[in-house]
Amino acid sequence: MHPAYRRLLREVTEITLLQSVQSLLAWDQETCMPSRAAPTRESQSALLAKNTHQRLVAPEMGELLETLREVDRHGQLDPEQAAHLREVRRAHHRGKRLPGELVEQLARARARGVQTWLRARRQRDFELFAPVLREMVSLQRQVANAYGYEESVYDPLLDEYEPGMTCRQMEVVFGEVKGKLIRWVASCEAVVEVKKSLEAVEIPSAPQQAALANWAARAIGFDFQRGRLDESVHPFTLGISSRDVRLTNRFSWADPVRVVLATLHEAGHGLYRQAIDPKYDGTLLGQPTSCGMDEAQARLWENMIGRSRAFWTFARRRMQKLLGGDNGLAVADEIHDRINGVRPSPVRIDADEVTYNLHIILRFEIERELLAGGIDVEELPSLWNRRMEEYLGVYPRDDAEGILQDIHWADGCFGYFPTYTLGNLYAAQIFAAACADLPHIEAQIERGCFAPLRRWLREKVYRHGRRFTATELMVRATGKPPSSESFLNYLKAKVSLKSGRRRSV
Amino acid sequence: MHPAYRRLLREVTEITLLQSVQSLLAWDQETCMPSRAAPTRESQSALLAKNTHQRLVAPEMGELLETLREVDRHGQLDPEQAAHLREVRRAHHRGKRLPGELVEQLARARARGVQTWLRARRQRDFELFAPVLREMVSLQRQVANAYGYEESVYDPLLDEYEPGMTCRQMEVVFGEVKGKLIRWVASCEAVVEVKKSLEAVEIPSAPQQAALANWAARAIGFDFQRGRLDESVHPFTLGISSRDVRLTNRFSWADPVRVVLATLHEAGHGLYRQAIDPKYDGTLLGQPTSCGMDEAQARLWENMIGRSRAFWTFARRRMQKLLGGDNGLAVADEIHDRINGVRPSPVRIDADEVTYNLHIILRFEIERELLAGGIDVEELPSLWNRRMEEYLGVYPRDDAEGILQDIHWADGCFGYFPTYTLGNLYAAQIFAAACADLPHIEAQIERGCFAPLRRWLREKVYRHGRRFTATELMVRATGKPPSSESFLNYLKAKVSLKSGRRRSV
Repeated sequence: MHPAYRRLLREVTEITLLQSVQSLLAWDQETCMPSRAAPTRESQSALLAKNTHQRLVAPEMGELLETLREVDRHGQLDPEQAAHLREVRRAHHRGKRLPGELVEQLARARARGVQTWLRARRQRDFELFAPVLREMVSLQRQVANAYGYEESVYDPLLDEYEPGMTCRQMEVVFGEVKGKLIRWVASCEAVVEVKKSLEAVEIPSAPQQAALANWAARAIGFDFQRGRLDESVHPFTLGISSRDVRLTNRFSWADPVRVVLATLHEAGHGLYRQAIDPKYDGTLLGQPTSCGMDEAQARLWENMIGRSRAFWTFARRRMQKLLGGDNGLAVADEIHDRINGVRPSPVRIDADEVTYNLHIILRFEIERELLAGGIDVEELPSLWNRRMEEYLGVYPRDDAEGILQDIHWADGCFGYFPTYTLGNLYAAQIFAAACADLPHIEAQIERGCFAPLRRWLREKVYRHGRRFTATELMVRATGKPPSSESFLNYLKAKVSLKSGRRRSV
Repeated sequence: MHPAYRRLLREVTEITLLQSVQSLLAWDQETCMPSRAAPTRESQSALLAKNTHQRLVAPEMGELLETLREVDRHGQLDPEQAAHLREVRRAHHRGKRLPGELVEQLARARARGVQTWLRARRQRDFELFAPVLREMVSLQRQVANAYGYEESVYDPLLDEYEPGMTCRQMEVVFGEVKGKLIRWVASCEAVVEVKKSLEAVEIPSAPQQAALANWAARAIGFDFQRGRLDESVHPFTLGISSRDVRLTNRFSWADPVRVVLATLHEAGHGLYRQAIDPKYDGTLLGQPTSCGMDEAQARLWENMIGRSRAFWTFARRRMQKLLGGDNGLAVADEIHDRINGVRPSPVRIDADEVTYNLHIILRFEIERELLAGGIDVEELPSLWNRRMEEYLGVYPRDDAEGILQDIHWADGCFGYFPTYTLGNLYAAQIFAAACADLPHIEAQIERGCFAPLRRWLREKVYRHGRRFTATELMVRATGKPPSSESFLNYLKAKVSLKSGRRRSV
């Protein structure tokens, strides 16, 4: 190993350790921290963030990276070292470009944004939120300008979550799916009746929900010696290291099926993190390659597995045993039909697989136009509602159900939404490739045997961490660059399957 | 505020924040961390410890402290600032005296020590532990020499836990109590029969124990908005800040009374930390003034309150309700007698209040002689057993029940044991002063009304944190420097009370 690279490793190991401690602070804040400890926690997190940032952008780090660029030019780094150098350079240069003052302004605006958004949503009144959103849009433009861009002011923001992705590429992707999805939604019967049998069941108690969640995560192979599952208000997953992955779930769902789907989602994130090659520990390669790829692993287990007939053939009996009753889980087909019904709703997190991406497209279009200065904040609610009607045929009752439903803009996460759709696309394409390689996958899932799929995913996707870009990884795993083809085929099969079934009733 | 002092505050605030994060890492390790995450946790903790130490002993810190010494000499610091300067100087100079190499050697020896001790104790064989103990004694001597001392090699080690306390002072204290305690033990009937009714009760389930523990902590005023209570193998308390205090308890005791006593102990530590004046947040004054004073607050609630007849008059009914049955809690007097029986046992943590300090004296004598080179490690087991017989009239069955019972030496905590006895002495003296000021305290406790005592303790002890030394604090709180008088009076009353009751049966 080149001595300069060894020095880089030593420094980056400490930086990633500091970041892992920040993750633990964040996890504790959402799961354990006493309510009144918030001010101390804010100071602890801010201090570690400052220390991490200082080390990342230090002039010595800059010099070391320049040295290593030369070393790399002379072919003295192996491909993994070169990939790691790429990631550290990226983090260093992005970190250096943001002036400290802007970082602070942004942090304050985010804190104020979230507080104001909460109040505005409670009062169902966008007017309250409008001023802070206007300020946030302006700050996001400053951030984009600080990072710099060639084509679109949206690019450097998107690049934060999906490295290398551009606004133009996203427009192509969304262009391919938007028309088809709108047509499919219009052609589906608007509401699939929810089985009465299911509404009548008793709501599982919190300990029963915890047991269900633990069972589901364990069933698909989440390793509880290297992770845990706790309760939080909003489900999330945090990888402190590949040896310490923390899932959370709400234990207050009315529907046991929803508990399991939410768990499969988080455990999908968790399986990814637990299977990243341990040789990447202490490097920037030891994390998901992009938010879209991370989301894909969650959606694959939640949707391709969790919404399949095969899964419920396996799962419903175990769940009945855990819940000690019928609980509307008697017939796998009924569960399957219910969770695959196409039901346009104004609320993204209630969306089925067909309508979900139309929610994303709407947000992407609006935030792109906002940043480009094409629309004013005041016009947003009516624009939102008009498009919702156009794409989904539904009209929000009020701002809380409309423009105020998501936290992302309040929290300064412009450019994040598209990664949800990328995740869906990646997931379908990866799952199609897995099915081609695993001819008996359906029978295996019906038996609760997930190891073959997990092994395939580990080998093709998980273990590589950030070694490859998302596009490189897709080519390696599926033989093709990412596209919307598999996703549209997958959805089309579901839509026609359902029409077929409905006719036969 | 003098600008140099302001600079000190800024620096110390960051140091204490880093320390508070280390506390959270330690808490998480004992309560939540997945088993296989240990290697990452070791690296996280070591990195933060290194960063904290570097900042504390930095040359710039040394210069700042020199400047402030001059500022103080010119009377430009108020008494609180001067007290804080004293604490930072102490930490800086102690930190600087330990060579980095010795710190590392010690850390490695502790890790190896604990591992070897665990194995030796399992195999009940001191021979396995002897080599690492010999090495640890030698390292502790090096540490003492690095710190420097005037009279005894034991002094700088004791000073770590009880600032300002010396071996000679401890010898005086122990000299006052040792003879009396040995006589009292000999004059008591050796074994007080345990009520059959109590042995027959069903062992509370883990959730019942958790409910009991939460009830007991809340009953005496522990604030769950600024703290929590979780399960761990060994009960402990960690103050992350005055707003975030974490208690733990075992939920596997057979006896519900033991659950409550162990909880009162930890909640006593917790009340102290929660009531330290918030103006000391982010300074070295925001912590207990010494290990002995910290232990005193735990022992006061565990023993003076938790082993009183008044407490059980109040507690037994609530506990019966929580446990849903008689559970041997029918008669307060029976509970009181049982938990106040004098039963010499070779095991410290099973000791009653009379025999407890004889266990400590034995350990103090041995570690003092070990460090002075007066005895060899090989002779320890037989020396231990002989003294145990001499002081307590019992003889350990094997090394696990004898010399190997405590983790302290394996973990490098030489000089810690005396603080247990200091805690008992402080507690009795503080409680006597409280009782003199609160004439209705017994009736209040019988009603479960702990607020008057808690307010008294907050005013006289808790809020001051490390503002005063332990001796200064005792004078302020009780009007007298610490002595063994109150403790001996308190115990004597208990011993004769018991004889009296026994005669009347």
